[in-house]
Amino acid sequence: MEIHHTRFLLIGKSYRVDISLIIPPMFEFNLVARQGNARAGTFHTPHGDLSTPVFAPVGTQATVKTLTPEQLKGLGASLVLSNTYHLYLRPGDELVAELGGLHQFMQWPNPILTDSGGYQVFSLSDTRKIDDEGVTFKSHIDGSTHRFTPERSIQIQNNLGADIIMTFDECSDPNDRDYTRIAMERTHRWAERSLRAHQRADQALFGIVQGGVDPDLRVKSAEFISSLPFPGIAIGGLSVGETKAEMHATLGVVTPLLPEHKPRYLMGVGTPEDLIHGIARGIDIFDCVLPTRLARHNAVFSPEGRLNLMNAVYARDARPIDESCDCYTCRTFTRAYLRHLISAKESLAGTLLSIHNLHTMINLVNNIRTSIIDGTFESKVRLWLEQWHGNAERVKSKVDQ
Amino acid sequence: MEIHHTRFLLIGKSYRVDISLIIPPMFEFNLVARQGNARAGTFHTPHGDLSTPVFAPVGTQATVKTLTPEQLKGLGASLVLSNTYHLYLRPGDELVAELGGLHQFMQWPNPILTDSGGYQVFSLSDTRKIDDEGVTFKSHIDGSTHRFTPERSIQIQNNLGADIIMTFDECSDPNDRDYTRIAMERTHRWAERSLRAHQRADQALFGIVQGGVDPDLRVKSAEFISSLPFPGIAIGGLSVGETKAEMHATLGVVTPLLPEHKPRYLMGVGTPEDLIHGIARGIDIFDCVLPTRLARHNAVFSPEGRLNLMNAVYARDARPIDESCDCYTCRTFTRAYLRHLISAKESLAGTLLSIHNLHTMINLVNNIRTSIIDGTFESKVRLWLEQWHGNAERVKSKVDQ
Repeated sequence: MEIHHTRFLLIGKSYRVDISLIIPPMFEFNLVARQGNARAGTFHTPHGDLSTPVFAPVGTQATVKTLTPEQLKGLGASLVLSNTYHLYLRPGDELVAELGGLHQFMQWPNPILTDSGGYQVFSLSDTRKIDDEGVTFKSHIDGSTHRFTPERSIQIQNNLGADIIMTFDECSDPNDRDYTRIAMERTHRWAERSLRAHQRADQALFGIVQGGVDPDLRVKSAEFISSLPFPGIAIGGLSVGETKAEMHATLGVVTPLLPEHKPRYLMGVGTPEDLIHGIARGIDIFDCVLPTRLARHNAVFSPEGRLNLMNAVYARDARPIDESCDCYTCRTFTRAYLRHLISAKESLAGTLLSIHNLHTMINLVNNIRTSIIDGTFESKVRLWLEQWHGNAERVKSKVDQ
Repeated sequence: MEIHHTRFLLIGKSYRVDISLIIPPMFEFNLVARQGNARAGTFHTPHGDLSTPVFAPVGTQATVKTLTPEQLKGLGASLVLSNTYHLYLRPGDELVAELGGLHQFMQWPNPILTDSGGYQVFSLSDTRKIDDEGVTFKSHIDGSTHRFTPERSIQIQNNLGADIIMTFDECSDPNDRDYTRIAMERTHRWAERSLRAHQRADQALFGIVQGGVDPDLRVKSAEFISSLPFPGIAIGGLSVGETKAEMHATLGVVTPLLPEHKPRYLMGVGTPEDLIHGIARGIDIFDCVLPTRLARHNAVFSPEGRLNLMNAVYARDARPIDESCDCYTCRTFTRAYLRHLISAKESLAGTLLSIHNLHTMINLVNNIRTSIIDGTFESKVRLWLEQWHGNAERVKSKVDQ
């Protein structure tokens, strides 16, 4: 029923393509409940239903670092993000296709999302050259020269076979307004080209809204991307150097302009606090390297704030990381043991800290979803923000995730 | 019943200590079956019964590298070895004791064995000084000076709290006969001192037979160590530079001289082939870093021989490591994916390869135990030796395990 409604809305905007050909029913998005702008929904994909809001752990190179798929399932992870740029370079998208696609290759039976590679390519600022057709860049692995265009990015993503894929976009520095306008306009042209290039009905291609922190550009981009027959909308260009206030204001401008019955994905965000703010502003899907990257730097989320377990103060601390947490790490190990593993350079530390950090994010999002459904989100949101405030420091994404 | 029998035998040798005070009934060893010299038994410990023969994965720094205790349990591991030298230096045995002992600290609820630290200390050949009282050495971590004596080693092991602990011994170069005799005699004096220093009835202190590859010395050492009231006997000084033939010959000399009703532990051995040979010669307990160390060097056991999965030939190989293996890694992943993880420097490779290599060892020993019980060991041993022959290359242990 929802899919017909979506089609009707789009036809109401006079878009002339028969979108039933482009948005297969398998990507139906049903809203289950709302509280203010916050939404709880179900997004259907060929690899199962996603309960939204959802937080996607990042598996850059076809693995969420230090974790087996079995451990990831044990955490209740549903959606996993993987990076097109990295997989294109190594092991190569054709090799992945030959081995049955990304789900089969990495043995993740649940939904997968791939980005377009654009973000990574643009962040190679010393070696890449942009033109209207695409981007030429050098591999961070061996310095060899490569070229991405919207068509090539989609072809690679078609080979990888994720359930959710992204248009090729340009993410600009939000503090450079003139360039941000140019990048946004190019992103729009590339969105149309990505849509035309897309070949697989079993993959949902999401459009990406850009425009930095300029409300006028964001309005323009939100309206343009919403006018195209994408089954979902991503918001890019945030958590890349702007302030928290600017990010929240930008979300406040963009989300009211997006179609109600399409999932909204806030790319590369973020901290526990960012998730709460994003959900309160109508976001459905998040991804971030933060939980696993912090784990590799010995840092963990906790209601006491972010802790660095290498600190000598934890050497004889018999408490778990977070006494209120029921992840495997907190149910099993003391801070003293975790600090020992870190100090002894044992890679198990990365595994155990990743388990805790990912559990914290997934559990938080699950609790928020429940509160949206039972109507308590707005009464709990202040408490959650207070509880997670001390974990708010943001870490920027880089090519080497 | 077995414990009384053991006591009787020892009293028969005119040893005057009332060994019921030294060998608590909790360390009873029952022989379940024999085939030739091979034995299947049950060794009772305060943390559960060990079915022997048993292979102990090595958790040098209070963790079997790259694996959670949960994953280790999933592999069917029962006994885990940890290293006194490493834990003494970091995090410190007193800290471990304060946090409830090693089982509690590393959350391994099953039996643990610690070595005495002797092997590691002696292998620091550039910085250690030996005298009859003990060894002075420099830490490989920070160069600080420390001293181990038999009394100190036992005190540290009492603090750590493993179920099975070792006398402080000197492992000599088997090719230096004169020095081997001196080291053996010192090992014997230290065995008596270790026995006197031992304080905890809930830990089984094993004596260690030394003597290199000299049959006369080995006979002398086996007889002397057997005359002391140890609840189990270890054989040290093998797999340290001698040939395979010398190792087998030495085992052939030693094991017939050991008391039937005490478990026999062959220290630091070995490959799948070594285990088969050891069991055929009456060994009950093995440990080796090989499965996890090979995993960190991208190598895996297989009936095809040892494979290095970094090899480009595996890039598109859709088979598991070993089609006859039912470990998580082989049930789940292709060689191509494992090679990708290695090539992309993902630490998950170490985890998945460790799972396979440890499963191979544990499963082999379990199959051998079953064959001893059902009387088919002698008919199967040739097949097993043929099957695992290609994995025979030996890797020496070093301080940095």
